[in-house]
Amino acid sequence: MHTTPENANFDADCRAAFEAQPIMGTLGIRIVSVTPGGCVMEMPFDRAYTQADGFLQAGMPAVLADNCGGCAMMSLMPAGARVVAVEFKINFLAPAVGDHLRAEARVIKSGRSLSITEVDVFAVKAGEATLAARMQQTGMRRDPR
Amino acid sequence: MHTTPENANFDADCRAAFEAQPIMGTLGIRIVSVTPGGCVMEMPFDRAYTQADGFLQAGMPAVLADNCGGCAMMSLMPAGARVVAVEFKINFLAPAVGDHLRAEARVIKSGRSLSITEVDVFAVKAGEATLAARMQQTGMRRDPR
Amino acid sequence: MHTTPENANFDADCRAAFEAQPIMGTLGIRIVSVTPGGCVMEMPFDRAYTQADGFLQAGMPAVLADNCGGCAMMSLMPAGARVVAVEFKINFLAPAVGDHLRAEARVIKSGRSLSITEVDVFAVKAGEATLAARMQQTGMRRDPR
Amino acid sequence: MHTTPENANFDADCRAAFEAQPIMGTLGIRIVSVTPGGCVMEMPFDRAYTQADGFLQAGMPAVLADNCGGCAMMSLMPAGARVVAVEFKINFLAPAVGDHLRAEARVIKSGRSLSITEVDVFAVKAGEATLAARMQQTGMRRDPR
Repeated sequence: MHTTPENANFDADCRAAFEAQPIMGTLGIRIVSVTPGGCVMEMPFDRAYTQADGFLQAGMPAVLADNCGGCAMMSLMPAGARVVAVEFKINFLAPAVGDHLRAEARVIKSGRSLSITEVDVFAVKAGEATLAARMQQTGMRRDPR
Repeated sequence: MHTTPENANFDADCRAAFEAQPIMGTLGIRIVSVTPGGCVMEMPFDRAYTQADGFLQAGMPAVLADNCGGCAMMSLMPAGARVVAVEFKINFLAPAVGDHLRAEARVIKSGRSLSITEVDVFAVKAGEATLAARMQQTGMRRDPR
Repeated sequence: MHTTPENANFDADCRAAFEAQPIMGTLGIRIVSVTPGGCVMEMPFDRAYTQADGFLQAGMPAVLADNCGGCAMMSLMPAGARVVAVEFKINFLAPAVGDHLRAEARVIKSGRSLSITEVDVFAVKAGEATLAARMQQTGMRRDPR
Repeated sequence: MHTTPENANFDADCRAAFEAQPIMGTLGIRIVSVTPGGCVMEMPFDRAYTQADGFLQAGMPAVLADNCGGCAMMSLMPAGARVVAVEFKINFLAPAVGDHLRAEARVIKSGRSLSITEVDVFAVKAGEATLAARMQQTGMRRDPR
């Protein structure tokens, strides 16, 4: 989807909204880029969030992907609008292990009320990226009161 | 689903397998109960994992639900088998905020290869539980080599 | 969910809305019951909609479950409101083969805008029902203009 | 995903397997193309499968997308292997109405046991295609006995 953003300050607004989330600091998630209808985020690998095999527990790529997809949705919304999580579905394709995870989100549809994204999550090790998970996500726009 | 467990030590084995996960300690997740085809887990509310509104970020109930559903699946598997995450879908019904989250998982089908669960996640505040999320999840059995 | 329906004529209105759909007649789907937050529908097995093994193609239980879940959602909406399909996820648990399929839908949440259901689809043969599929579904309320 | 197919006759084998399904003839679904990891199918619009607004009922694009994704999966499998439906999730983005639906499937991962696809479904009217639905799908390989 290539769309002219309604909010000329989408980049700064998305960064401000998402960086205000305590979870971003706790997990060390950083925004790599925000584009109209797209977002890239990275999260360092941290043993503290692994399961018994030493891979990140399956929910962790979902945390990153959900955040990244929400930011991509917000990039196409009018100034002041926020994104409320409706639902998502995620498939796990390879172990989430390495130096860090990188999520790449694209908006498939940006509707008046509902937006849909697809988000790839890569496990990156020594510069090599492996597709570890794929999400399809629905969010709802909440306009400022 | 009411099934006689194949593994007579399912309770101890499930607790051992899931408590060995570093993420359980990091997030303070505890196993409340394991039954044949069922599991209940709780996770304390922690501001460190919230988004901008002060609710847990949407991925966090998914972390808890995925773990709880995986444990429920394992309860019906033969001794030594483990659960590999295939995919899940989760709907968000109410803000994940309160004293703690409680997940309740039930196995819908326990197959030779694939198992399916449904998991409710409640936000509990002052003893009152609100359904905050609902997951439908697929896992795959990995037999010992 | 046990809820007093907002629409006292929910039963007649749901039946009228769903029976007006051409697909119901084409596939022989009939409404067995509508209750507040619930619906049961049946669809005869028809070889015309099978795949190569003689089972109904996977989309066919989805057709029935989506319709059944939509009807359950509508039962809790105000008079005149309609249901628009947002998304669904469905797991296939057993072959869809037998005399007919029976879908049983329950509303998990009926919100102002979005509703969520779970729907079981049973394959019924000689009176014996096997769980063949499980859906988790999101619909949106469209109020009359 | 760009992969060398294991089965040199993937095109003929996929066409034979899918065209053997009675549902293909009943609904007039035709295979436009099969490529390694990809498939395109079309289904004519037919009022017989519409809901009350004159759009195809939501399950109908799911029928087409599930078939198309399954064929794409099969294109990367060894000769003789078949695809069993595990689960799918589908979002509805625009009304399924027009001259015909066109589904375009791409394999995201082709594993030894499980394969994952994404499938776009377009509603085509007077040559103009509108994205009407998006599916993310899991299938399982069944090897010949």
